Amino acid sequence: MSQPAQKRSRKAGLPPGTPVYIGERKSETTRLTLLHYNEQRTMEQEIKTVEESNALRDTPGVSWINVTGLHEAERLAQFGKAFGLHPLVLEDILNTDQRPKLEDYGEYLYIVIKMLGNENQTSAITTEQISIILGRNLVISFLESDSGIFNAVKERLLGSRGRICKLGADYLAYALMDTVVDNYFGIFEKLGERIETLQDGLVSRPTPASLQALHALKREMLFLRKSVWPLREVVSGLQRGDSPLVQKETWLYLRDVYDHTIQVIDTIETYRDMLSGMMDIYLSSLSIRLNEVMKVLTIIATIFMPLTFIVGIYGMNFHFMPELGWRWGYPLVLLLMAVIAGGMLVFFRRKKWV
Amino acid sequence: MSQPAQKRSRKAGLPPGTPVYIGERKSETTRLTLLHYNEQRTMEQEIKTVEESNALRDTPGVSWINVTGLHEAERLAQFGKAFGLHPLVLEDILNTDQRPKLEDYGEYLYIVIKMLGNENQTSAITTEQISIILGRNLVISFLESDSGIFNAVKERLLGSRGRICKLGADYLAYALMDTVVDNYFGIFEKLGERIETLQDGLVSRPTPASLQALHALKREMLFLRKSVWPLREVVSGLQRGDSPLVQKETWLYLRDVYDHTIQVIDTIETYRDMLSGMMDIYLSSLSIRLNEVMKVLTIIATIFMPLTFIVGIYGMNFHFMPELGWRWGYPLVLLLMAVIAGGMLVFFRRKKWV
Amino acid sequence: MSQPAQKRSRKAGLPPGTPVYIGERKSETTRLTLLHYNEQRTMEQEIKTVEESNALRDTPGVSWINVTGLHEAERLAQFGKAFGLHPLVLEDILNTDQRPKLEDYGEYLYIVIKMLGNENQTSAITTEQISIILGRNLVISFLESDSGIFNAVKERLLGSRGRICKLGADYLAYALMDTVVDNYFGIFEKLGERIETLQDGLVSRPTPASLQALHALKREMLFLRKSVWPLREVVSGLQRGDSPLVQKETWLYLRDVYDHTIQVIDTIETYRDMLSGMMDIYLSSLSIRLNEVMKVLTIIATIFMPLTFIVGIYGMNFHFMPELGWRWGYPLVLLLMAVIAGGMLVFFRRKKWV
Amino acid sequence: MSQPAQKRSRKAGLPPGTPVYIGERKSETTRLTLLHYNEQRTMEQEIKTVEESNALRDTPGVSWINVTGLHEAERLAQFGKAFGLHPLVLEDILNTDQRPKLEDYGEYLYIVIKMLGNENQTSAITTEQISIILGRNLVISFLESDSGIFNAVKERLLGSRGRICKLGADYLAYALMDTVVDNYFGIFEKLGERIETLQDGLVSRPTPASLQALHALKREMLFLRKSVWPLREVVSGLQRGDSPLVQKETWLYLRDVYDHTIQVIDTIETYRDMLSGMMDIYLSSLSIRLNEVMKVLTIIATIFMPLTFIVGIYGMNFHFMPELGWRWGYPLVLLLMAVIAGGMLVFFRRKKWV
Amino acid sequence: MSQPAQKRSRKAGLPPGTPVYIGERKSETTRLTLLHYNEQRTMEQEIKTVEESNALRDTPGVSWINVTGLHEAERLAQFGKAFGLHPLVLEDILNTDQRPKLEDYGEYLYIVIKMLGNENQTSAITTEQISIILGRNLVISFLESDSGIFNAVKERLLGSRGRICKLGADYLAYALMDTVVDNYFGIFEKLGERIETLQDGLVSRPTPASLQALHALKREMLFLRKSVWPLREVVSGLQRGDSPLVQKETWLYLRDVYDHTIQVIDTIETYRDMLSGMMDIYLSSLSIRLNEVMKVLTIIATIFMPLTFIVGIYGMNFHFMPELGWRWGYPLVLLLMAVIAGGMLVFFRRKKWV
Repeated sequence: MSQPAQKRSRKAGLPPGTPVYIGERKSETTRLTLLHYNEQRTMEQEIKTVEESNALRDTPGVSWINVTGLHEAERLAQFGKAFGLHPLVLEDILNTDQRPKLEDYGEYLYIVIKMLGNENQTSAITTEQISIILGRNLVISFLESDSGIFNAVKERLLGSRGRICKLGADYLAYALMDTVVDNYFGIFEKLGERIETLQDGLVSRPTPASLQALHALKREMLFLRKSVWPLREVVSGLQRGDSPLVQKETWLYLRDVYDHTIQVIDTIETYRDMLSGMMDIYLSSLSIRLNEVMKVLTIIATIFMPLTFIVGIYGMNFHFMPELGWRWGYPLVLLLMAVIAGGMLVFFRRKKWV
Repeated sequence: MSQPAQKRSRKAGLPPGTPVYIGERKSETTRLTLLHYNEQRTMEQEIKTVEESNALRDTPGVSWINVTGLHEAERLAQFGKAFGLHPLVLEDILNTDQRPKLEDYGEYLYIVIKMLGNENQTSAITTEQISIILGRNLVISFLESDSGIFNAVKERLLGSRGRICKLGADYLAYALMDTVVDNYFGIFEKLGERIETLQDGLVSRPTPASLQALHALKREMLFLRKSVWPLREVVSGLQRGDSPLVQKETWLYLRDVYDHTIQVIDTIETYRDMLSGMMDIYLSSLSIRLNEVMKVLTIIATIFMPLTFIVGIYGMNFHFMPELGWRWGYPLVLLLMAVIAGGMLVFFRRKKWV
Repeated sequence: MSQPAQKRSRKAGLPPGTPVYIGERKSETTRLTLLHYNEQRTMEQEIKTVEESNALRDTPGVSWINVTGLHEAERLAQFGKAFGLHPLVLEDILNTDQRPKLEDYGEYLYIVIKMLGNENQTSAITTEQISIILGRNLVISFLESDSGIFNAVKERLLGSRGRICKLGADYLAYALMDTVVDNYFGIFEKLGERIETLQDGLVSRPTPASLQALHALKREMLFLRKSVWPLREVVSGLQRGDSPLVQKETWLYLRDVYDHTIQVIDTIETYRDMLSGMMDIYLSSLSIRLNEVMKVLTIIATIFMPLTFIVGIYGMNFHFMPELGWRWGYPLVLLLMAVIAGGMLVFFRRKKWV
Repeated sequence: MSQPAQKRSRKAGLPPGTPVYIGERKSETTRLTLLHYNEQRTMEQEIKTVEESNALRDTPGVSWINVTGLHEAERLAQFGKAFGLHPLVLEDILNTDQRPKLEDYGEYLYIVIKMLGNENQTSAITTEQISIILGRNLVISFLESDSGIFNAVKERLLGSRGRICKLGADYLAYALMDTVVDNYFGIFEKLGERIETLQDGLVSRPTPASLQALHALKREMLFLRKSVWPLREVVSGLQRGDSPLVQKETWLYLRDVYDHTIQVIDTIETYRDMLSGMMDIYLSSLSIRLNEVMKVLTIIATIFMPLTFIVGIYGMNFHFMPELGWRWGYPLVLLLMAVIAGGMLVFFRRKKWV
Repeated sequence: MSQPAQKRSRKAGLPPGTPVYIGERKSETTRLTLLHYNEQRTMEQEIKTVEESNALRDTPGVSWINVTGLHEAERLAQFGKAFGLHPLVLEDILNTDQRPKLEDYGEYLYIVIKMLGNENQTSAITTEQISIILGRNLVISFLESDSGIFNAVKERLLGSRGRICKLGADYLAYALMDTVVDNYFGIFEKLGERIETLQDGLVSRPTPASLQALHALKREMLFLRKSVWPLREVVSGLQRGDSPLVQKETWLYLRDVYDHTIQVIDTIETYRDMLSGMMDIYLSSLSIRLNEVMKVLTIIATIFMPLTFIVGIYGMNFHFMPELGWRWGYPLVLLLMAVIAGGMLVFFRRKKWV
């Protein structure tokens, strides 16, 4: 996940514009679904050939072609050509390590955004590239897998509910982007919980494993940041209204997506700051533990070394050591040592070591 | 507080513009108060229905509708519709995790700012979203709770005192923002005291608890920064005078609020720098303590190890050890050891360890 | 000094534009001195009432009114009103925690800069706010105390020496600002000496007290930075020549002040970098000391533990220990131990520990 | 590699524009190859004299002269003069420590980019400067060595395949740059593997050698960053379309290279962040090890010091020590000591030290 | 060197524009040398009085007046007045703590750059200010000392060699700047060697002295950065072509100087990064040493404490200790202890401590 340049080398040496899918095969088949709608009605249809997709072209209304699964590069290339997509656009749709971006090809806009997901078994965050082509009365969306993220939009269309059926293709593109960005909030919620858990663990028990977890999270944030940060420019680019394909009524909605993007970026930055702070906590926890260990050692040594010295004295074999003959010599020495040990403990208590 | 993305997921899947209140219910009821004033007189009135609010529309003067409590989403939606507010505005009013922002909807400006507060029992800083709609002769303010922050403004209006009654709705909006920003200074004053207290504690006694407190403060600063920083752009946006709703006379006052905002931001940055410095102090305090502990250990070991060795020598059972038979052997050995211990102490004093 | 928001809360709740002095009373009385000069002659006069200040208005030449002591808010408010100053300007003059700034009120420019000073007894740096009003043929300067910083300018005027008498009010304002900025160099010179002294101390003897001093200096730099940094924009704003009050001839001089300001800012940044470096030095000095202490402990322990073990062996009471009966047993053991101790010392010398 | 200013001093004192090759001699000879192509056909030819290169000038089509080996400064100077290259351009072609840059000389554009390579024996990254002159229907490329990086382009031309033969000299220049940038991905892939390997090593076994390796990698990243970062401005400069030499059709392709460059820069920044994090891991691994060592020491000392003290007591020679005469004294003392040692171990197990 | 504000206070209180030399006296005398050249011939002449310098004014060609030694402030003031230099320019020429800058006075451009040098005895880097006045057909250069840096330029002129004699005063000014910047490369080469040497020393033997050297280098870099960084803006200012004094032909050459400046700045930043990294290396070297010391201590203590305990046991004076009477008791105990010590060593070897 954190080695962005890894898969790209499959393409070295090929001329630019060659469509090669560099991701893993995430779907069984490449499916194309066409939704055509206008204010009156909405119809859905799976399409197999390029000709089918052209059938509805003359009917007034908006066509939305949703493509899931990108591994059939050849078929997609044909399809792209039929819709007049530039070879570089096709290449970028299949090169799923693009940064989010907006490109204006005159006839259509090409938008790349990243969908985030949680793998079921682990808590690692996955990313999928979503490409959106916004043309005149036409939206084409390309997804790596059939994750069902756009189902809610589809249902709103099929139910002919809300603004979405009255407004144009640009509103549909907005709705798709909005769905993806809204999806981020849930992902970051879970991430926030992981960070909290980790922090609690770090403070109560700093282990090398928690340090590893901390660094894994840091790398994940770095990676998320790269996936989300450029989105800001994408949305503000759309909203600036340079392209006639985006109508004025949609601007307000794009501003809303822009706001959400900023919120997500803010969250990422906050998390990064929190993770940096946790590194400090970890290191200082280590120092505190070392201090504690050293205090135990010092207390033990400081108490027993003088005592051992004293018993050593009366273990000497000098012929003339009067104390040895005293009746109460032994108990007195024991007492003396108890006093010394007690004094040490008082000293340590004063120093707040005990 | 520090998990900005947490509550948002309640909304995932809903079409954009759906008004759902995502905060906690902070007020008992949703109350709408209308103040209508012109240079001659001011009148206050609680309103229940949308029609009431329209009654005064034709009277010359400025209307200020203050809404406290945002949990009755349905009623607010109705109200918003009556005043021609865009669904996205209504959504943002209820989504109380907005960043401060300024949006120009032509007919009205939509301003979001954050009110800071201190919870009574703890010293944690709370935040509430305040939305202000500035229309022609109309100001609508939305507060999450009835905290009474705008009472001073209300009293000035009711007392028909000062500039505020002569100038238009834009001045009223300015006065509300100014009140909120002025309120920041008190909050930061208390925060400054907490930082001072913490710093004194850290230096005199570095405990893990104070480290935790330090990090809690750091996260609080992060959070405050996010609440205040964008305000700068809001105010400068208003002041730039793009909207005809803000009159030239008010610009000077907005510049003043802008100055205050910059001062608050400066304060936040200073506090952040101070907290960073305190982390260093904490870590170096730990090091100093470790050094101290080690010195004690070293002094004890360095004094008693040679002495224990000497008493060990005369504890040996060799048959031919002439010293053992000497009359003054024992006192001489004691003297020797005293000299050695004394020499050690002199050595340590020279090394400035004692 | 480092709690910028502290004094401000005195003003919470008051309507904007209320003149309240928030600083300490630094002068006995508020004194107003008027200097009127043209190419022919210069006259000085203390003024008590507002009317006096108006007397010279019609005479051609430049009037400079110098106000020292800001605690008589009421009197200053009256005075300000007579000269047509905006209430917000008056408020800012008395709110002495402003950042340096330039505000264009059309009829006059309002400039805030910070004077730095050294308290006599301690070496702490103090700050005073200087407000300058630049009108047509009129300069009004407001000082918190009568520190005599403008005496050199006054003398040049009274002596009718130099360019200053020939050029207009804008040149006078420049001269005042130049004086304040030139004064910074001396302050920073002393600060540089304090930093040097501290650094020498840190390296030779790292104590917690020097760490405290280091952090005090760091906070002082933070504070100075805030006082000086915005000055850059003030001067460049003046120099950009947007206002007709600043004549083209003065631009070159303002560029000179701008250069000096940049030099001061450079110095501050250099000092900040040096202080950061000193923190590193301090921490590594602590590590070096710890290493040293541990080496002493290790050497002592490594030499005496084996020796104590050997004397322990011959202190055992086994009946059959042939060595005990040897004639040269005791001297041989002593010799063995001397050899061991010597070997240890050679080992440590090789490891460069001794 | 990391001393960028090193070789440059060979040139001190020479007048500007003097062509001196400052690199190592990387090729045996300086070879010039001419490829001339148009939509119909492509021809390749090695050229020895300047005149040869002029022969094809009048034929319609694009000429690409590829120069490998830069040590024959004199010959290149002659060649450059024949093509009207500015002396400063020639100087920069030979001064192979240029940063990537784009310079517009009106008649032609001068582009400098850096090729990265892996030395076979070691894994160190090498860099070579590639200069590209883009004129009207003319591309001249200068390589330090004959590394064959442009072979794929050459083959596409010779095979008359693809867009490249139909489009102009600007497309050829783009293709060369694209080849170099695509080549980066493979280099960074290997670098990513090295970083992974190092990280695993650091965590499992922190040695000074791995620290050295870490710092070598950090310096390498610094160096790569300097080689790649300015490329961004080069490409965006070309793409901005200020020069008539770059046609509108090529803009889309340049935008693609720009995207790739951004991806490479992103990768570099990610790696830098990862390496910074690894430093933290290394330091905390050291701390963890120190803690571990100290715990062993403390456990040993804490168990044996009290025991040694006890056996010392019964080694004392007092005449009246009743325990010494007890029948079960010796076994009881052994038992007591076992209990004490066991208690210690329980204590340490509770503290999670064992 | 690192106290930029130090010498400046000599000037406090003086009116702006007063020419006072604030540097040390670096030359014996102030010497003015005039070189007049055109395409035909070049003549050199030392000038004593201002009149002499005017003599050649009407002859077509370029005059270059080189002034070395700045301590005769009075004479320079006279000279400056004769050439119509603004008092502020004269002041800045003598205030040798200027940052590099470019000022356009209409009639002439005033350029300040910094020459770097190595003191012969030490390796510390010195700095000298060079001021260049570029007028119509006139260049005046002011040097603090007669370091001979411009000798190469002078010789090219006297030998009437190269472009320099054909092009105008702006090319001469460029040539002077180019000479100064080229000189930087040699300085940084030596600096790079010092850094390498230091790094090797730090790794092999971290002493407090090398830490001091590291910090001295860091401060030197800070200082160099301040001397070189603004040069970038100076050159780009010249190159932007706002002034008619700089002709279009010279732009290309200035772009070249600009490139070199960027390279020098890159080098400085690289060195700064390397020095920062070295601090990390130093600190971790200290940690490694501490670990090593602690391991020795722990090994010694862990081996000898149990042994000393065992010999202590058999030193007890219990009457009933059967082992003491055994024939092979003594050798058995010795064997036991050898086994224990051996076991310990195996344990440490497993932990990779030995």
